[in-house]
Amino acid sequence: MSANSFGTFFKVTTFGESHGTAIGGVIEGMPAGINFDSEWLKAQMNRRKPGQSHLVSARKENDEVEILSGIFDNQTTGAPIGFLIRNVDARSQDYNPNVQRVGHADDMWKNKFGIYDYRGGGRASARETATRTVAGAFARMLVTHLKSDCDVVGWSAQMGPFKIIDSPETQFSREEIEKSVCRFPSDANIQAKLQGSLEEAKMNGDSWGGIVAVRISNPPRGLGQPVFKKLKSEFASALLSIGAAQSFELGEGFESLQLSGNDFHHSSSETNSRYAGIRGGISTGEPIFMKIGFKPTSTRGEMAQKGRHDPCIIPRAVPVCEAMCWLVLADHILWARLDKA
Amino acid sequence: MSANSFGTFFKVTTFGESHGTAIGGVIEGMPAGINFDSEWLKAQMNRRKPGQSHLVSARKENDEVEILSGIFDNQTTGAPIGFLIRNVDARSQDYNPNVQRVGHADDMWKNKFGIYDYRGGGRASARETATRTVAGAFARMLVTHLKSDCDVVGWSAQMGPFKIIDSPETQFSREEIEKSVCRFPSDANIQAKLQGSLEEAKMNGDSWGGIVAVRISNPPRGLGQPVFKKLKSEFASALLSIGAAQSFELGEGFESLQLSGNDFHHSSSETNSRYAGIRGGISTGEPIFMKIGFKPTSTRGEMAQKGRHDPCIIPRAVPVCEAMCWLVLADHILWARLDKA
Amino acid sequence: MSANSFGTFFKVTTFGESHGTAIGGVIEGMPAGINFDSEWLKAQMNRRKPGQSHLVSARKENDEVEILSGIFDNQTTGAPIGFLIRNVDARSQDYNPNVQRVGHADDMWKNKFGIYDYRGGGRASARETATRTVAGAFARMLVTHLKSDCDVVGWSAQMGPFKIIDSPETQFSREEIEKSVCRFPSDANIQAKLQGSLEEAKMNGDSWGGIVAVRISNPPRGLGQPVFKKLKSEFASALLSIGAAQSFELGEGFESLQLSGNDFHHSSSETNSRYAGIRGGISTGEPIFMKIGFKPTSTRGEMAQKGRHDPCIIPRAVPVCEAMCWLVLADHILWARLDKA
Amino acid sequence: MSANSFGTFFKVTTFGESHGTAIGGVIEGMPAGINFDSEWLKAQMNRRKPGQSHLVSARKENDEVEILSGIFDNQTTGAPIGFLIRNVDARSQDYNPNVQRVGHADDMWKNKFGIYDYRGGGRASARETATRTVAGAFARMLVTHLKSDCDVVGWSAQMGPFKIIDSPETQFSREEIEKSVCRFPSDANIQAKLQGSLEEAKMNGDSWGGIVAVRISNPPRGLGQPVFKKLKSEFASALLSIGAAQSFELGEGFESLQLSGNDFHHSSSETNSRYAGIRGGISTGEPIFMKIGFKPTSTRGEMAQKGRHDPCIIPRAVPVCEAMCWLVLADHILWARLDKA
Repeated sequence: MSANSFGTFFKVTTFGESHGTAIGGVIEGMPAGINFDSEWLKAQMNRRKPGQSHLVSARKENDEVEILSGIFDNQTTGAPIGFLIRNVDARSQDYNPNVQRVGHADDMWKNKFGIYDYRGGGRASARETATRTVAGAFARMLVTHLKSDCDVVGWSAQMGPFKIIDSPETQFSREEIEKSVCRFPSDANIQAKLQGSLEEAKMNGDSWGGIVAVRISNPPRGLGQPVFKKLKSEFASALLSIGAAQSFELGEGFESLQLSGNDFHHSSSETNSRYAGIRGGISTGEPIFMKIGFKPTSTRGEMAQKGRHDPCIIPRAVPVCEAMCWLVLADHILWARLDKA
Repeated sequence: MSANSFGTFFKVTTFGESHGTAIGGVIEGMPAGINFDSEWLKAQMNRRKPGQSHLVSARKENDEVEILSGIFDNQTTGAPIGFLIRNVDARSQDYNPNVQRVGHADDMWKNKFGIYDYRGGGRASARETATRTVAGAFARMLVTHLKSDCDVVGWSAQMGPFKIIDSPETQFSREEIEKSVCRFPSDANIQAKLQGSLEEAKMNGDSWGGIVAVRISNPPRGLGQPVFKKLKSEFASALLSIGAAQSFELGEGFESLQLSGNDFHHSSSETNSRYAGIRGGISTGEPIFMKIGFKPTSTRGEMAQKGRHDPCIIPRAVPVCEAMCWLVLADHILWARLDKA
Repeated sequence: MSANSFGTFFKVTTFGESHGTAIGGVIEGMPAGINFDSEWLKAQMNRRKPGQSHLVSARKENDEVEILSGIFDNQTTGAPIGFLIRNVDARSQDYNPNVQRVGHADDMWKNKFGIYDYRGGGRASARETATRTVAGAFARMLVTHLKSDCDVVGWSAQMGPFKIIDSPETQFSREEIEKSVCRFPSDANIQAKLQGSLEEAKMNGDSWGGIVAVRISNPPRGLGQPVFKKLKSEFASALLSIGAAQSFELGEGFESLQLSGNDFHHSSSETNSRYAGIRGGISTGEPIFMKIGFKPTSTRGEMAQKGRHDPCIIPRAVPVCEAMCWLVLADHILWARLDKA
Repeated sequence: MSANSFGTFFKVTTFGESHGTAIGGVIEGMPAGINFDSEWLKAQMNRRKPGQSHLVSARKENDEVEILSGIFDNQTTGAPIGFLIRNVDARSQDYNPNVQRVGHADDMWKNKFGIYDYRGGGRASARETATRTVAGAFARMLVTHLKSDCDVVGWSAQMGPFKIIDSPETQFSREEIEKSVCRFPSDANIQAKLQGSLEEAKMNGDSWGGIVAVRISNPPRGLGQPVFKKLKSEFASALLSIGAAQSFELGEGFESLQLSGNDFHHSSSETNSRYAGIRGGISTGEPIFMKIGFKPTSTRGEMAQKGRHDPCIIPRAVPVCEAMCWLVLADHILWARLDKA
């Protein structure tokens, strides 16, 4: 069943295996009359793809997105948007069906489905995040068409032992973030140390986990539903559906537990950043701040030995987390059209 | 739209406001031929309800569940199970539409829907967790019918400054947990201190947040879907849909970030408790361990002044977290029937 | 799964067996700010219920609808509307589990679910149409709030050998229809003959099938979706989900097959009543005309012998068909909010 | 929203416009371990495509289906099956945005979405039935894997004035049907007359409607749901979602209205062909017999003048109706896995 779809009103359904012919998807729910921003789409695909630097996987992926339908005269028509990304450089010979990749889930699939396409993780490879990135780019076109000042900005908040001290008020400009090869906005000295450490990890076939922080500025007010589709639940669902994600915090999350209720709710609700932009499951219009923890990449397979792994996936996870947030926003911005008579 | 439903195959749709006539719901997807365990249902309702001790809200709630359909000769028939809980002791006079309850979301609803039933939080009150508890009890009947050794056990892992040191291997028996009035399994000395502190907080109109830990032993293997409905994503969505929940961790979560990949993935995947029972988004059959962080209850309203609030909702959140986990398991145990030809 | 729900955006989920404690449902998707028209609801329940005359089943049904949630100060709040109808006069002693009721589906349920609530058809009894009628009444409140001149009027177009000659242009006022006890608008002479024949059929334990015609005047323009959710497909799905319904025609249906394309498409598309208000699966804003064929009620059971059956269900099927049409309209009127940016 | 999907458990989501780059879709819910029958798929594509004879549209369509995912070693893997058909011979110069095509719905789309891809009907062209045919072929692979003797056979039961006298007992072998260029199984004399008449209609720029009959032999028993997803409702929804379909009959449909209940229900329910294989909304395991009425093709456009239209679409609608039936069967065969504990 729809285990390949995300979203209710703005919905993407994806297909494709890491080493198959192609990956792709269908985006439904895009209203008619939105300008197609091919530049934004291309930029996001570039931010996600491997091979951006020597610090990430060297796997060459084709990230050229072919739009097959739903756009006419550079505008959305209300019809579903089919898209396709052909796979290249699959190198399935790198994969040996008889070698168990530690920390991967190959055995899980085999057990579950009886049959398994062993080449490169099959359906559940990191490759599938390319389709999320495409869908997220379209979601952004919708959201910013309706609320142009809304933005979703993510960064690497922790990479192994390196950590940015933050709070729900922390923010960085996209420029600050992107000028760091690791999307870890910090001074040159720390950047150098971080990169040195990553090179070392890569050489040792080792890896690090970390944290992606996401800040949504100027979100539409009133998004989310009262009970089961609270906005926080939707973000958690979206972000925890990414491969190595293990934990999720809204606002100060686990750290806020040190505070008593009187301190936590210290100020008028309208301006209390501890609520992190969501109250009663509904967006207040204030900035939304979230953190997503990722476990370290599995390194015990043949890939790591061949240098084709990311010593830390956090930098490349940033655009994927952003994409998932855009998808949630697009879904609920449409949903909110049904609130009132 | 279906913002009042949880689940895809095993699904509950709920209705009702805190101070309306009744709350209730419809459970769909329950296969025919399951014994109706009224004792279990009753016991769970008792665990959740207010007024269990002087440490929780004194509000008297009727928690008598009337089953309206779907059961015949004490067995499920495959028909939807309608259920109803009448509201009593609503005391809507306690609520003043002109007083903004700090930290509550009354203004959010008013803004979103234009109209608002101001009495007691309307739809989004803690009262709605009673319907989750009912549904969770039915979900457990299904899961244990199919896999009798599966169990979901939750406890208070942190209440304000009091914290149980744990790891994915930590476990307590249901008896150990329930003999503590706070579901905080610890020695008598600590229990006494904890209760003293809570009494003080209650007197001061103050409150604490905390953490619920949940351990699922002997879960069915192979639950979850490869991409968007990973089991971890489903648990996060379920648990973050509970009122004050702010954060979610699978396994060691944020703490595991201190480890390098070589240490995290130290052992053969089959027995590594760091995966916390889920790999590739799919249950391995090993114990699943999760933590859910809750912000402190809002205390700035008229309710706190009248002693009708919980100084710490964690103990009462335990059965609700368990219920949501049973719902996820029931949903995916049915889902897995479609995996193979 | 959601086999108990109808609708995507305006959705009703129902529960309850014919001879259980109660039937009821949850209506989701009703926007906030709609006036609750209890008079209309009551009137529709009366039109549907048995015992309206000596020509229909004498079974006494309680049709008092208790609204449990979602209404405040006589207005919808955007919260789900729970409703309940207690069963009375169930007389399950009339039903003998060892007697196969010919033409009923008792054996089907038993085979399908292994267990079966044999009393009175269980879930799939005509009793369940009461919940459709409730939901349809709410759907109408929404549709007429948004487009006050829209109306759905049904009548008995055929009852056994008695037939009204009609075309997509045929229309009757609700008053004309309701003044006929059989909702068969015709002259007094024919009415008398029809009633005589029905009395005879009832006495003989016999029954008739027939046709319900429905005309929707002033429907909103632009409802329906291009491919799988064409408006005609939605109406067919809705109307064929009613118990004894066997056939569906849009416009002249099977009869139009006598015409060549040049004759069928004779006039400018805007005013061609042969399209019956739907072109390309989308409502044109012109009247929509449909016919639904029902097979004769099964009569071979113990019920017929006791005079508790309808010799022809067509008159009582009229308000149920109307209700299903209102549900489709409400669903698609909300859906259309998502068409454009 | 999911207006581009058909099915709940076995689901296809389609995309693509008649004159865009490509059409295609994603098939979800296919269990792992089904053999991929490429021969069957190819044969069905050939049966549907234009240009099979001088009696159908001469438009050349590429019907080569590229399977992009979900198949490995010629077996389904449980992953979604993405597929693609490139458009060729689109000849969008044949279409003039300023000419209203009578009987088409171009104006409807323009009104609904504000923007419209005018070339060849956009999304709602007959071209989209190619994606249904692909999905139906996969659905058949599933159904026959589980129940090998189940078959769905359709034929042209009426083409304008030519009509095959039938009843729910009527059946033809696929060979008998396919040896007729019009899929109108009858003697050589009638075939010749029928073809002569069609040639004449084509020359005159005229067209005919007609009826497709479908017989499902050896369907699985127990398919369908008690209330809203009755099997008949599902078939009606499926078949009325096809372009020019206007009416639907189960069994003898409208004709059975001549019978009294005592005659209709004359025999033991198990063997009464009047029920046409569905009782209480559930398949009995007996043959299911249905008829679908289609209005005559619109002929008033520039296409008809250029000879690029079908004088009667019935023959080419046959495989599309069959495909929709396979989809319903596959959906409900999976659904039924959830009936019992």
